[in-house]
Amino acid sequence: MKGLFITFEGGEGSGKTTLINKVYDKLLASGKKVYKTREPGGVEIAEQIRSVILNVNNTKMDKRTEALLYAASRRQHLIEVVIPKLEEGYIVLCDRYIDSSLAYQGYAREIGIEEVLNVNLFATDGLLPDKTIFVDVTPEVGLARIKDNNRNQNRLDLEKMNFHKMVYDGYKKLCDMFPDRFISIDGNKDRELVLDDCMKIINDLIK
Amino acid sequence: MKGLFITFEGGEGSGKTTLINKVYDKLLASGKKVYKTREPGGVEIAEQIRSVILNVNNTKMDKRTEALLYAASRRQHLIEVVIPKLEEGYIVLCDRYIDSSLAYQGYAREIGIEEVLNVNLFATDGLLPDKTIFVDVTPEVGLARIKDNNRNQNRLDLEKMNFHKMVYDGYKKLCDMFPDRFISIDGNKDRELVLDDCMKIINDLIK
Repeated sequence: MKGLFITFEGGEGSGKTTLINKVYDKLLASGKKVYKTREPGGVEIAEQIRSVILNVNNTKMDKRTEALLYAASRRQHLIEVVIPKLEEGYIVLCDRYIDSSLAYQGYAREIGIEEVLNVNLFATDGLLPDKTIFVDVTPEVGLARIKDNNRNQNRLDLEKMNFHKMVYDGYKKLCDMFPDRFISIDGNKDRELVLDDCMKIINDLIK
Repeated sequence: MKGLFITFEGGEGSGKTTLINKVYDKLLASGKKVYKTREPGGVEIAEQIRSVILNVNNTKMDKRTEALLYAASRRQHLIEVVIPKLEEGYIVLCDRYIDSSLAYQGYAREIGIEEVLNVNLFATDGLLPDKTIFVDVTPEVGLARIKDNNRNQNRLDLEKMNFHKMVYDGYKKLCDMFPDRFISIDGNKDRELVLDDCMKIINDLIK
């Protein structure tokens, strides 16, 4: 495929969503064909699947059921959005992808990274990102930021700090498992400096 | 687990649903703890997932998305119904299970038996039936029966004969792949004779 597939990963409060928006604006301003998305990305079938995952009445949902539903939603978003855009030559920036499932369900929820990876390789038919940017912010800093911003706390924010630490450790493991694909940037810096680091990486990829 | 997990497989019109009902009645009459189920089995989360699969407006659904959704529904039914009943010592008779996905999605829809098996082993955490009874009726006979019975034709019934032949060939392959677990019975015989063959197998398992 002609395009470039870049995913962004990180824990709660890592600032990755703000970062993606800025990266998108910069690339657009420099005349690049760039597309920004996140699952379920407005894809009707993926939205329906998400509504099952997020239904607060589904308290009996097993963690493997959840992992399979995330993988199903990912598949449909990939088929309807990501692959067509890559085929049209876009730089596709995706807020979370396969590695979120590996860090959250595989590692932090203790299903196992390898097991969740296998399901996701089925879902994506082996399509991995060209590069995955991990915005490295410790969970203590990330959660403090969310609190400072008075952002509405969501269900995940409210889970125990221990869970967020597990997610962080999961991402660290993924950086070690996929050293060629993962690149880590220091998200504790000033936001403009984080953006500069990120643009350097992306400009190197585009070259 | 103390119980016994028996699944029934076969193409459209194989008569397996009628067969399960009769087996259930016989076992119940002989004083056995027996439970009869089929996915999604009234499990709320599994029903929600099924409604996404069967939504006629979801024409863009990818076959891998569909396979993942079936696996997710299977997981939840297994966790909420099958495993608890097996733990309570029931003989659980299940109308279709993992092998339906292998024959339909894996073989007939050409995703690949091994690939769909891997996803389903994740879904079931490796829990395979103690015995799988394949009701062997050729697709020509099966479809003719459905027509004769004036049963309402469903979407699958209406698909091309070629697809039903593929499903049948898929089941034949599964019988070869899992010779210890699969047992084939001739479903072309008179229904009472089919029931006798089936009861012999089950009584051997219970002994």
